[in-house]
Amino acid sequence: MFRNQLARASIRSTSSINQIRNMITAQAVVYAQHGEPKDVLKTHKYEIDDDNLDSNSIIVKTLGSPVNPSDINQIQGVYPSKPEKTTELGSSEPIAVCGNEGLFEIVKVGKNVSNFKEGDWCVPSAVNMGTWRTHMLCGSEEMTKIPNPEQSKANGKPNGLSINQGATISVNPLTAYLMLTHYVKLTPGKDWFIQNGGNSAVGKYATQISNLLGINSISVVRDRENLQELIKDLTEECGATKVITEEQNASKEFGSEIKSWLKETGGEIKLALNCVGGKNSTGIARKLSNNGLMLTYGGMSMQPVILPTSLHIFKNITSSGFWVTQLLKNDMELKRKTLNQIIEWYENGQLKDAPSKETKFNSNDDLSKYYIDGIVNSKGGKQLIVY
Amino acid sequence: MFRNQLARASIRSTSSINQIRNMITAQAVVYAQHGEPKDVLKTHKYEIDDDNLDSNSIIVKTLGSPVNPSDINQIQGVYPSKPEKTTELGSSEPIAVCGNEGLFEIVKVGKNVSNFKEGDWCVPSAVNMGTWRTHMLCGSEEMTKIPNPEQSKANGKPNGLSINQGATISVNPLTAYLMLTHYVKLTPGKDWFIQNGGNSAVGKYATQISNLLGINSISVVRDRENLQELIKDLTEECGATKVITEEQNASKEFGSEIKSWLKETGGEIKLALNCVGGKNSTGIARKLSNNGLMLTYGGMSMQPVILPTSLHIFKNITSSGFWVTQLLKNDMELKRKTLNQIIEWYENGQLKDAPSKETKFNSNDDLSKYYIDGIVNSKGGKQLIVY
Repeated sequence: MFRNQLARASIRSTSSINQIRNMITAQAVVYAQHGEPKDVLKTHKYEIDDDNLDSNSIIVKTLGSPVNPSDINQIQGVYPSKPEKTTELGSSEPIAVCGNEGLFEIVKVGKNVSNFKEGDWCVPSAVNMGTWRTHMLCGSEEMTKIPNPEQSKANGKPNGLSINQGATISVNPLTAYLMLTHYVKLTPGKDWFIQNGGNSAVGKYATQISNLLGINSISVVRDRENLQELIKDLTEECGATKVITEEQNASKEFGSEIKSWLKETGGEIKLALNCVGGKNSTGIARKLSNNGLMLTYGGMSMQPVILPTSLHIFKNITSSGFWVTQLLKNDMELKRKTLNQIIEWYENGQLKDAPSKETKFNSNDDLSKYYIDGIVNSKGGKQLIVY
Repeated sequence: MFRNQLARASIRSTSSINQIRNMITAQAVVYAQHGEPKDVLKTHKYEIDDDNLDSNSIIVKTLGSPVNPSDINQIQGVYPSKPEKTTELGSSEPIAVCGNEGLFEIVKVGKNVSNFKEGDWCVPSAVNMGTWRTHMLCGSEEMTKIPNPEQSKANGKPNGLSINQGATISVNPLTAYLMLTHYVKLTPGKDWFIQNGGNSAVGKYATQISNLLGINSISVVRDRENLQELIKDLTEECGATKVITEEQNASKEFGSEIKSWLKETGGEIKLALNCVGGKNSTGIARKLSNNGLMLTYGGMSMQPVILPTSLHIFKNITSSGFWVTQLLKNDMELKRKTLNQIIEWYENGQLKDAPSKETKFNSNDDLSKYYIDGIVNSKGGKQLIVY
């Protein structure tokens, strides 16, 4: 269990001290009680004493942290993974800092810290670190290094990571990569996976990554006015093998079309990725070959997963869940390996990040307002606060 | 692939020969086309020449073979596992012999056969052998020996197997035992499994077997007028730990009652067995502990398996299918081991078989009539034709 609040250095609430030295003034978006974000979020200001840094601790400043749906659910109290509330930031009542994903830059390192130096970039090693804040004091093992743009260039890579790539690397790209690689062996050039939510952020990462791995993909999307444009985009920009509509996926007749695609490659649909649920999950499960696996990582339709009995008994289809938080909780090696692969693709320009709507924080402002607005605006796309 | 029709000995259709020697006259219930049993089943008569038995072959006579739902579905053509049609029994058109389960007695063995002698009992090693017939000529490896009553007694066992026990040993008891033991490690005295269809044949075997293994059970049954009588029967006769109704299983309030049971044993509900589907499958899946497994082996409600997304993602519940035919197809060792355990419990009087309605075949009659009647009467309980 990582507990950044335990890092041994002076943290004092700004309200409780007379500022006599040049400390770092930090802001964090916190809640003391669960509830609707606009009702419970507030800004907590505190000082980090960078002159008395513990030998194994580091101080980081935030470069960017996004608003993820799970962050909102965590504030509402309906998410199974929750940060502990604490008074260690000098608050009068126990509080938790919001946010799970983010990109940080090292400001100062304790004298025994060997894995970081000033200017390095890093992401949280685990969830529940509280990334919606301007600065953080934490143990050096609580952060995982990723290359900053100068380091990438020095290393001969064509590109450095953008703030958005670094700040959103920990959830969606890892989810897509791990679902495609950690459970089922898909033979490049032959085998297929099928997914619904093909136009979602994870869906697009999965399409791009499968293309990089040589795996064929079938993405199911909702029918829409600009369908042909979307198909063109997913095919040309993400490397989708096939894009079909929910209606085609539900149609028995269309099944023979899909079978002809499989015949061409000599492979099977061994994996289905479900983030929709309901009859849409049934539709992709039906396309699986014998002994296939469906991984559910979301439920956008708010409908449960529905699986015909015969798929279980006679086709030996298995239905499981995927939660990146749980999978990587106790497997830092897998996280490091997966991060490295995503970073390499970003550096080589082979993988495109899902764009975020970026809002620049002005340090004279109150930080919580940015995230409260970000939550409201989330419906229109991913929001990223940059610092 | 076992193909009893390939056993090398003369088989001739009775219509095509002049009977000049004392051959065995056999009857088999066959179909040439799929369809409703009453329309497509007929009796095929043929002779087995027991004077010219191949050195590795055996001739068996049938002691009993039941009508299983899967046998009916196989005739209708809606079951995924099907026998091949052949003319090797001397028919003018390709036919398949019905039936998958049965008990047989060795009548004669080829001179190289060492695993059987006359009078031994046996069951088919695999499915699709065609057990609805009076006699069978097959390779010795196509049958698996089980002790006849004299052998059990000579071995110091208190009981020999009954015809019903032997003729129905291959599907339901193996299904119950393998679902309880092959997938999840349940700690005796602590852990639990939950099942719907608690009053079904497999359900009662599962209850008895879990009791013999020291595993706690929760059986969900439909509410009924004589509920208390059923609960008493399942508890006293089968050793059920707890029996609850579907309404209790669906009720949130009842969940705390179940939690108190778990607390008493210090165990978890790690396994759910589903033969109903629909909301009934959701109900038992919700009772599973984190990382639990639900195995679906039937769908009596004709509704699909329904799993809330959160059970998959946040509780890591897995939903899979169980089909004894497929599991044991290529694992004779597991089949032998499982059979031995069931036989031992029968011999010791520790396990009770599900009763069948037995009808004695009169060899002057036409055999297909018995099974056509048996199919009709199946709705009132399992039918067994004894010879």
